[in-house]
Amino acid sequence: MSQVERIGVSLEKDLLSLFDALIAKQGYPSRSEAIRDLIRQQISQEQLGNPKAHAVAAVFLVYSHHSTRLMEMLTDLQHSHLLQTISSMHIHLDEHNCLEVIVLRGQVGEINRTAENLISLKGVKLGRINLLATETA
Amino acid sequence: MSQVERIGVSLEKDLLSLFDALIAKQGYPSRSEAIRDLIRQQISQEQLGNPKAHAVAAVFLVYSHHSTRLMEMLTDLQHSHLLQTISSMHIHLDEHNCLEVIVLRGQVGEINRTAENLISLKGVKLGRINLLATETA
Amino acid sequence: MSQVERIGVSLEKDLLSLFDALIAKQGYPSRSEAIRDLIRQQISQEQLGNPKAHAVAAVFLVYSHHSTRLMEMLTDLQHSHLLQTISSMHIHLDEHNCLEVIVLRGQVGEINRTAENLISLKGVKLGRINLLATETA
Amino acid sequence: MSQVERIGVSLEKDLLSLFDALIAKQGYPSRSEAIRDLIRQQISQEQLGNPKAHAVAAVFLVYSHHSTRLMEMLTDLQHSHLLQTISSMHIHLDEHNCLEVIVLRGQVGEINRTAENLISLKGVKLGRINLLATETA
Repeated sequence: MSQVERIGVSLEKDLLSLFDALIAKQGYPSRSEAIRDLIRQQISQEQLGNPKAHAVAAVFLVYSHHSTRLMEMLTDLQHSHLLQTISSMHIHLDEHNCLEVIVLRGQVGEINRTAENLISLKGVKLGRINLLATETA
Repeated sequence: MSQVERIGVSLEKDLLSLFDALIAKQGYPSRSEAIRDLIRQQISQEQLGNPKAHAVAAVFLVYSHHSTRLMEMLTDLQHSHLLQTISSMHIHLDEHNCLEVIVLRGQVGEINRTAENLISLKGVKLGRINLLATETA
Repeated sequence: MSQVERIGVSLEKDLLSLFDALIAKQGYPSRSEAIRDLIRQQISQEQLGNPKAHAVAAVFLVYSHHSTRLMEMLTDLQHSHLLQTISSMHIHLDEHNCLEVIVLRGQVGEINRTAENLISLKGVKLGRINLLATETA
Repeated sequence: MSQVERIGVSLEKDLLSLFDALIAKQGYPSRSEAIRDLIRQQISQEQLGNPKAHAVAAVFLVYSHHSTRLMEMLTDLQHSHLLQTISSMHIHLDEHNCLEVIVLRGQVGEINRTAENLISLKGVKLGRINLLATETA
């Protein structure tokens, strides 16, 4: 954690009231904490536009039990030299469906490519990918 | 425009450097201006989750010249008592396609419903809708 | 408009029922029209990831009347050799605020850069940018 | 898994070529599989607009080790009667930061509220929430 600095921000009273109401509802303990989160999100968003940026991602897949091709690809992923599978979690949703959450680390472009390949598999019904650029973490 | 207030925000030096670099790249004249924009976006985003909130929207449609049904619906829209068509703009893109930008004012839910009806018309090839909650403007 | 081809798609009955209900609600005249729109959006989305792709964009700015710097930049934009301003529309929102919609044509990367520069100006309160890749139009 | 039905979709040859190129790049084994995914995403998106819809969510938090308040809230979450914590995963990112992925099941509105409360905590640096409506799964 680096040293803390204090800056001044001027804004219209009306805007400040709306902001105070919003962050109270969201549960923020202070304006500083809420503004820091806005800034971090903005920086993270910017970094994710760069395919070479380093990121952590959670890939989130809902799939049918019978998708053996997915099982193979997830195993292959463990041995990828471009991406590091940090961890994965398997959840039984109902008699037909499973949820797999895979946490990966690597470059944004490579993560997106891999996620697309997983989501496009037969038997994978829904997929999402959540990227967080790690430079600001 | 309401009175201006000044608040203090504390944040880590590293985060501040990344933020300063980003806003310089985006062209912001000051940190206050950049932070005000982040706050306004956040509030606007929140308000758009409420179907009863008032908003201004630009509906953006790419369509084939031959879509007569769209022409009729756009005319009907002028007489809607739920939405106010503030203005619209027609652009000739190429020999097959036009772009129509329609600026509407009304409740979020009603705007979304109307935009869906326009986008789903035969001959409308691509559509987007841009909402801005007006309470913070 | 190119020749029309007919393809077959197999899908589960349950999924088809949910889809039929959704597109009826959105007002689609047929499944083909709804699926064509999904396909066009997907292709457009993909193309917008490429900064060199050609696109049409609507930049949507809410700003204070007093933002003279914005007026200058909008005038400069008319003379840009990288972007073509096709059209623009000015709307008086209330005693303090205006809405400007600017339709631009050019490369995705250049459009994004220009939009950021406009949105970051002092006096510009909210901004959005709507891009449509034009290859599929 | 319900019975499979086959429908016909007509679309322009040019659009079909662009689609075939895109899905080949994404790795889809067939057009049917790609179109089914587009349909499922669309339905899922629609359902997430309804705060009462049932969903599975992965909340993704990057936070400092020192955030004891987060630890308490995560423990409380295990006993929530509104949300069911299905599983969670803790990952050590570096000397300062951890990643927590929490898989929840419940109503969309309640999931969003809980995620906001977690993301707004002091010490939580970045947060994302990934929702998947489960009706289509």
